[in-house]
Amino acid sequence: MRLDLAQDVGALTAQLVDIESVSGHEKAIADAIEEALVPLNHLTVRRVGENIVARTELGRAERVVIAGHLDTVPVAGNLPSRVEDGVLYGCGTSDMKSGLAVQLKLCLLDRPNRDLTFVFYDCEEIEVERNGLLRLTREHPDWLTGDFAVVMEPTNGLVEGGCQGTLRAEIVARGARAHSARSWEGVNAIHGIRPILEVLSGYEARRPVVDGLEYHEGLNAVAVRGGVAGNVIPDECVVTVNYRFAPDLTLEQAFDHVRELFDGFEVRLADGAPGARPGLTHPVAAAFAAAIGGTPRAKLGWTDVARFSALGVPAVNCGPGNPDIAHTQGENVSLDKIAESERRLTAWLTS
Amino acid sequence: MRLDLAQDVGALTAQLVDIESVSGHEKAIADAIEEALVPLNHLTVRRVGENIVARTELGRAERVVIAGHLDTVPVAGNLPSRVEDGVLYGCGTSDMKSGLAVQLKLCLLDRPNRDLTFVFYDCEEIEVERNGLLRLTREHPDWLTGDFAVVMEPTNGLVEGGCQGTLRAEIVARGARAHSARSWEGVNAIHGIRPILEVLSGYEARRPVVDGLEYHEGLNAVAVRGGVAGNVIPDECVVTVNYRFAPDLTLEQAFDHVRELFDGFEVRLADGAPGARPGLTHPVAAAFAAAIGGTPRAKLGWTDVARFSALGVPAVNCGPGNPDIAHTQGENVSLDKIAESERRLTAWLTS
Repeated sequence: MRLDLAQDVGALTAQLVDIESVSGHEKAIADAIEEALVPLNHLTVRRVGENIVARTELGRAERVVIAGHLDTVPVAGNLPSRVEDGVLYGCGTSDMKSGLAVQLKLCLLDRPNRDLTFVFYDCEEIEVERNGLLRLTREHPDWLTGDFAVVMEPTNGLVEGGCQGTLRAEIVARGARAHSARSWEGVNAIHGIRPILEVLSGYEARRPVVDGLEYHEGLNAVAVRGGVAGNVIPDECVVTVNYRFAPDLTLEQAFDHVRELFDGFEVRLADGAPGARPGLTHPVAAAFAAAIGGTPRAKLGWTDVARFSALGVPAVNCGPGNPDIAHTQGENVSLDKIAESERRLTAWLTS
Repeated sequence: MRLDLAQDVGALTAQLVDIESVSGHEKAIADAIEEALVPLNHLTVRRVGENIVARTELGRAERVVIAGHLDTVPVAGNLPSRVEDGVLYGCGTSDMKSGLAVQLKLCLLDRPNRDLTFVFYDCEEIEVERNGLLRLTREHPDWLTGDFAVVMEPTNGLVEGGCQGTLRAEIVARGARAHSARSWEGVNAIHGIRPILEVLSGYEARRPVVDGLEYHEGLNAVAVRGGVAGNVIPDECVVTVNYRFAPDLTLEQAFDHVRELFDGFEVRLADGAPGARPGLTHPVAAAFAAAIGGTPRAKLGWTDVARFSALGVPAVNCGPGNPDIAHTQGENVSLDKIAESERRLTAWLTS
């Protein structure tokens, strides 16, 4: 299907939504985008796999990166898209084909006031190792350099700065096996997780202000497993906790905190990713925030802005989608929000 | 392999141990036993599957049932059997081929003082539905009638009366899902099992005296599971508890007790089996206990005595094996204990 970049940004969003692109199946949409961008003479287009990077080379003083992922969560009977009362419904409308449509409209700017790098990448919704932006940061970090990055993840059009870090740790309670008919001969490891749950239930989450934005941490059990057989006192029970931490902590500091909380238990780090500071004190970021308007908020979920942060590029999330209904069957986006996003970003890049 | 019933009971045990009979593979040992019993003219031998029932028909005032299972847990590099310092080592020595050997020696009594019914059955160590004694109680309950039953499960030669009942119940804590980056929007069901663990940790187990024997109950978590994904606040967590209850409670009363303990939670009965009263007040049982000597004890684990109890036949466990090392790689039995078991049971049935 040939993409028509000249059409209204809402109609362009609908066209993108109707090109199904569940994670791992982004070829059709990547082909369509590449085909639409190659004729634009002010852009240099590069592709690796289903990842496309298009750049202006105008010698401007600043370079801005604008990024969005091509994939969606699995379709849930919500395709093709449909419009009702000014709202576009369908898989990926909010997360984040409305953002991609805005990116593509900005690709038409042939004399922007800043050099632009557009990144379209695959496999954001699945396991980290397949993430296209991660691949680009490893194989072609030079394609991603810039002074500031905007990731078009759904934020209701607001500026959400940085992101919180996340780690998962396994807290292990141990006991001693015994036949359950003579339970007093053993030590029940499931009963032994009680102090772990007490720490979790009583935990007071921090809400620190970092670079002017208030974050909100959380510490929660996300899994528990224990049990050997129906007639055996279990000798091990493992609680997996997920700590969402503000970007004033490194991953190491965050893990130290978890270890201290569960002192006396074996604590194993399962996986983790550091957060990203909002970086809104940087002049180009401040100019962006002013152009977009509203009050910047802290991003609580982990997003790919942290990958730019790791490359030394301050980054924010700012997309027209609604994060609260992302990944739901009823996912939708307001056509007005998409148009407003296009308008404000265009103003920032042309004023 | 032809069984030699004339040999010493210890040597006969070793011969039985060396006929491998892991649950589901009892044909060879059942064939050998049938072949050994058929020539004994004072016994009527019946077989269904790998289950053998042999009876005297002497018109005695009382009938005693003596039962043992043919199968063992999986072999753990502990075959063939070996003797060391008067102890026989090997898979099934304790649980319960030493008991089977005593049964087979008793089969040679052609003029016992009570009519005898010998039961050899399969699949005791695995799922209940395959249990040979259960099959006999359903298909041929008339083969099992009697005034008293002795099950040759390992008890160190002591009389263990009745058995405790057992039930498993699932206690369900519910919450509300949310993204773990905004955990305060959800309700964590894993954190919600804390009151369940408090009940379990603080539970004071009853030790009631039933028909003169002291039982010892227990209420324990034997499994816990919860968790949706590493980034989701879980909306359900299930604790499976195992209640071992004394035989003064029916299964229904025991489940009511569990329901009351976890009032406010959904409580589902997963499975259960009632216990068996020891029945030692019955004259034939009392005579047995006197002949065996020692102080009768309560059986805490569930055993097949409950199947006889359900048929209205009082039953006890009394075998030469050692229950503490049953099912272990180092399973063994004292040759003296086997000989003593044979001697005492013979005395009871011939005096």
